[in-house]
Amino acid sequence: MSENKGLVTIALGGNAFLQKGQKGTVEEQWDNVVKAMKQVADIIERGYRVILTHGNGPQVGNILEWMDALREKIPPLTMDFANAMTQGWIGYMIQQALTNELRRRGINRHVVTVVNRVLVRKDDPAFQNPTKYVGPYYDEETAKRIAREKGWAMKPDPRGGWRRVVPSPDPVGNVEIEAIRTLLINGFIVVASGGGGIPVIEENREIKGVEAVIDKDLAGERLASLVRADYFVIVTDVEGVYLHFRTPQQKLLRKLTISEAEKLYREGHFPPGSMGPKVLAAIRFIKNGGEKAAIGHLYKALDILEGRAGTTIVPD
Amino acid sequence: MSENKGLVTIALGGNAFLQKGQKGTVEEQWDNVVKAMKQVADIIERGYRVILTHGNGPQVGNILEWMDALREKIPPLTMDFANAMTQGWIGYMIQQALTNELRRRGINRHVVTVVNRVLVRKDDPAFQNPTKYVGPYYDEETAKRIAREKGWAMKPDPRGGWRRVVPSPDPVGNVEIEAIRTLLINGFIVVASGGGGIPVIEENREIKGVEAVIDKDLAGERLASLVRADYFVIVTDVEGVYLHFRTPQQKLLRKLTISEAEKLYREGHFPPGSMGPKVLAAIRFIKNGGEKAAIGHLYKALDILEGRAGTTIVPD
Repeated sequence: MSENKGLVTIALGGNAFLQKGQKGTVEEQWDNVVKAMKQVADIIERGYRVILTHGNGPQVGNILEWMDALREKIPPLTMDFANAMTQGWIGYMIQQALTNELRRRGINRHVVTVVNRVLVRKDDPAFQNPTKYVGPYYDEETAKRIAREKGWAMKPDPRGGWRRVVPSPDPVGNVEIEAIRTLLINGFIVVASGGGGIPVIEENREIKGVEAVIDKDLAGERLASLVRADYFVIVTDVEGVYLHFRTPQQKLLRKLTISEAEKLYREGHFPPGSMGPKVLAAIRFIKNGGEKAAIGHLYKALDILEGRAGTTIVPD
Repeated sequence: MSENKGLVTIALGGNAFLQKGQKGTVEEQWDNVVKAMKQVADIIERGYRVILTHGNGPQVGNILEWMDALREKIPPLTMDFANAMTQGWIGYMIQQALTNELRRRGINRHVVTVVNRVLVRKDDPAFQNPTKYVGPYYDEETAKRIAREKGWAMKPDPRGGWRRVVPSPDPVGNVEIEAIRTLLINGFIVVASGGGGIPVIEENREIKGVEAVIDKDLAGERLASLVRADYFVIVTDVEGVYLHFRTPQQKLLRKLTISEAEKLYREGHFPPGSMGPKVLAAIRFIKNGGEKAAIGHLYKALDILEGRAGTTIVPD
């Protein structure tokens, strides 16, 4: 391992854990995570200090389906619990696969997952306008009955069927940031803010869970900025940020200044459900003092970090 | 808060999260945890430093039932994953309820949960003789089919029906102990080794999950001894360690030396599924240099720690 090249926060997308076409057996999951952790180990071996966060879409989806299937027998848990469970599940896989990979390379570093709450504002307008589809698909009649029984917002999903929608409020703080900082300072590789974090609000000086899903890249920015990371790398299943994505005019953007990125973002080039929050998270990271944000494919993580692949966003 | 009175590891039993007769709604769970955390806060307010561990029986049972109900649709996860999920679930509840209770008392301390693997020996004889009933109840025919399909050990449960049995190997180490120590030294209240820890073995320098359940009190002893806790308190739903429990001769043991405790343990006074592992964990803790172990009712936690209730086990 070479010198300290700075602190990088890496946000892992869903393909680090589940690949298209897979059913998600335990073997498939380990296989995916082991491959993803080779990428992370490359970055560590190069001399960077690392803090990891990750998505949890398919995993939280499974948990909601499981709970729904037995809802008459076992009282279902709320979204904050479902997130917490995925943090244990995915954090375990990451710390196991990454520790093993580092050992194979003769790097003696410890990896640890912190069960992590992310703070949102109780008056976030998202609570008045839930937009994030979660859990099982129902027919209209069942959906409307559930809406009456539970007070859930249910909407037709463009992918077919009716589903629950929950708010996706903007993350403003990370409740366990002091513990995360302490672990980082002491040389640990930390996994935190998984699945956007357990969503909580503060009310009368009490912290309370809420039924919401926080975008994992926006929560990742909070984590990266609050630990004063030098770099913020978002890895996913595309090569980087494109203009006119999936059209004949498609063009990979290799390097953007913060002003260029903001202009394109404001002009609406990046869809809200996919690249939008990633670009927004990158913009916020640079605005909050970060040196470089980068977005690209999981299997090129080190190249993305060092500017040889993906999209780099830097200060003006 | 008064002076530092020493470090205490508290092992919380199932009644801290689910009480008899409850279905386990989210409201019930919060209610139970809030009550339990008042007990823990009493200990912290008195001046002790605290590290917490906890059981997960009903929670892991729910997860296994959920996964089983949709086993044709979503590939079920293994026992190590199920444990990891309960660490997120219960760790979240503990850190939320305890932080809130401490804030109410004007105590500014952070509580953090570490996703925690506990090491067992791959040649532990328990792997040849699975004894711990887990998951749903099946009829004999289904049980035998599942046994063939999955290679699981299935046995008739004395409570009725057939169930899966998994090994309960002896914990020998705690993989995340360095992170836990670092957090403790820096003033954090740590939740670790939940549900006996995620069971792992070491094989060719790799760490691998196994299909097992580790006793949470024995794993708690490993945690307590490895962090050099002064005290180890096991709280449950009975007043302490009894001789001739639930017979007319029943007698609460208030104070035992390690020799007395060992003698009674060897004579078989304490049933393997309940008080046995608690007494064994207490014995091991004292043998490993602990000052005092204590066993008693959750709602008297501070009194148990200070010898005014429950059963105290001390060096000769």
